[in-house]
Amino acid sequence: MNYIESVKNTKVKQWKKLLTKKERDKSGRYLIEGFHLVEEALKEKNNVQEVIISQDTELPAGFTIEDTEIIYVAKEVMKVICDTETPQGIAAVCEQKTQNLSEINPQRLLLVDAVQDPGNIGTIIRTADAAGMDAVILGEGCADVYNSKVIRSTQGSIFHMPVIKANLSEVIDSLMGQEVPVYGTALEGAVPFEQVEKTEKFALLVGNEGQGVSKELLAKTSQNLYIPIHGRSESLNVGIAAGILMYYLRKNS
Amino acid sequence: MNYIESVKNTKVKQWKKLLTKKERDKSGRYLIEGFHLVEEALKEKNNVQEVIISQDTELPAGFTIEDTEIIYVAKEVMKVICDTETPQGIAAVCEQKTQNLSEINPQRLLLVDAVQDPGNIGTIIRTADAAGMDAVILGEGCADVYNSKVIRSTQGSIFHMPVIKANLSEVIDSLMGQEVPVYGTALEGAVPFEQVEKTEKFALLVGNEGQGVSKELLAKTSQNLYIPIHGRSESLNVGIAAGILMYYLRKNS
Repeated sequence: MNYIESVKNTKVKQWKKLLTKKERDKSGRYLIEGFHLVEEALKEKNNVQEVIISQDTELPAGFTIEDTEIIYVAKEVMKVICDTETPQGIAAVCEQKTQNLSEINPQRLLLVDAVQDPGNIGTIIRTADAAGMDAVILGEGCADVYNSKVIRSTQGSIFHMPVIKANLSEVIDSLMGQEVPVYGTALEGAVPFEQVEKTEKFALLVGNEGQGVSKELLAKTSQNLYIPIHGRSESLNVGIAAGILMYYLRKNS
Repeated sequence: MNYIESVKNTKVKQWKKLLTKKERDKSGRYLIEGFHLVEEALKEKNNVQEVIISQDTELPAGFTIEDTEIIYVAKEVMKVICDTETPQGIAAVCEQKTQNLSEINPQRLLLVDAVQDPGNIGTIIRTADAAGMDAVILGEGCADVYNSKVIRSTQGSIFHMPVIKANLSEVIDSLMGQEVPVYGTALEGAVPFEQVEKTEKFALLVGNEGQGVSKELLAKTSQNLYIPIHGRSESLNVGIAAGILMYYLRKNS
């Protein structure tokens, strides 16, 4: 049985480094924690490299780990590699899956411009998954998708939803070339969303919490939409706006 | 000019206590912080009792405070009464507005059963405001509406959106008696939401993050709805689900 007692162990130091974006980018790996996430991660092939279990942790009934290396660690080790206050005693190292837009042949895409809050990015990925989108494309200025708060907020959607970093301007050009309508979200020069017909293929573009979508991108879309504010709120949360629009635009065939 | 230097001052101790639900309930007051929230709060009459400003804080251009007592405090004082890591240097004491459902004559109501996360409650109130709901009714087990995280997440909607604590079972009985349709949200015994017609009067009932709406309440509604999951997410965030349904159900007259 693999057992690591000391927080000074080399492996532990490597895991701990995965809490930084720099190391995640360099190694192509990331850390997840908690029973639900590890269970979801294990459902995908070639996803989890190692499962890390704290010595005092009992696996819930029915929780099985097959064909994956398990490393047991002291409670103190689990603490230094987790960034939640009360770790559940299980973590895992996963491999980042890099995907190309050209591999997906997308019907429905969500494009995200500079959304900075990790909770928002995570919830947006979870909601895009629920709404049956084919992929989420993150442009510049978005929170790192492998940030632990993003991953927690996806509730597991990160493991099966393609999330691709790309230049949104180029993506829009390419979609327009394929006659996929691209709907931006904006307050000016936009129509109420219910004026647009539901459609089988579309891309929806949402933007930064404070500034919205950049003007340069809005100028390239097929049409920009807004969600009417019937009360006195100034705006909607970007995740909520994305949810309303993805469900509205989708034409169920 | 009123100026408080010491964190041991009686007034400071009273403010600090407002960080607890117990004291908020007892005093009928609550604390808010940050320029945006204080500005929004000041727009409502008889809402703000005192504005508290840190000695080193410059008010932004155009930010005016009229007919309201201003108390200047040392930086250390501001720190102990704020629960954000980097306070903006302005806070205010507000009065809780207790409202009765009977005063509102509601056309559109959002009923919330045991939603525990303060961020979710705040976002739900903000979204209900945007969607033109007349009031949000919080049942038992919901996060305290005057919790500072709830207030921040409402982005100011707390000051003009009626939020009422009530027994949801009684509210549903009363609405059904007035022939207002009440739509629950559930996975079983429910229809896809788009099968229901848009309507001018309705109440929507959403529930706890993990458990959903309680069975007892679901048994009393006119109809229960679900949002189809087209991908592999297990569920939607409760705020997102509420947003999709409130915008869908609303009939614009």
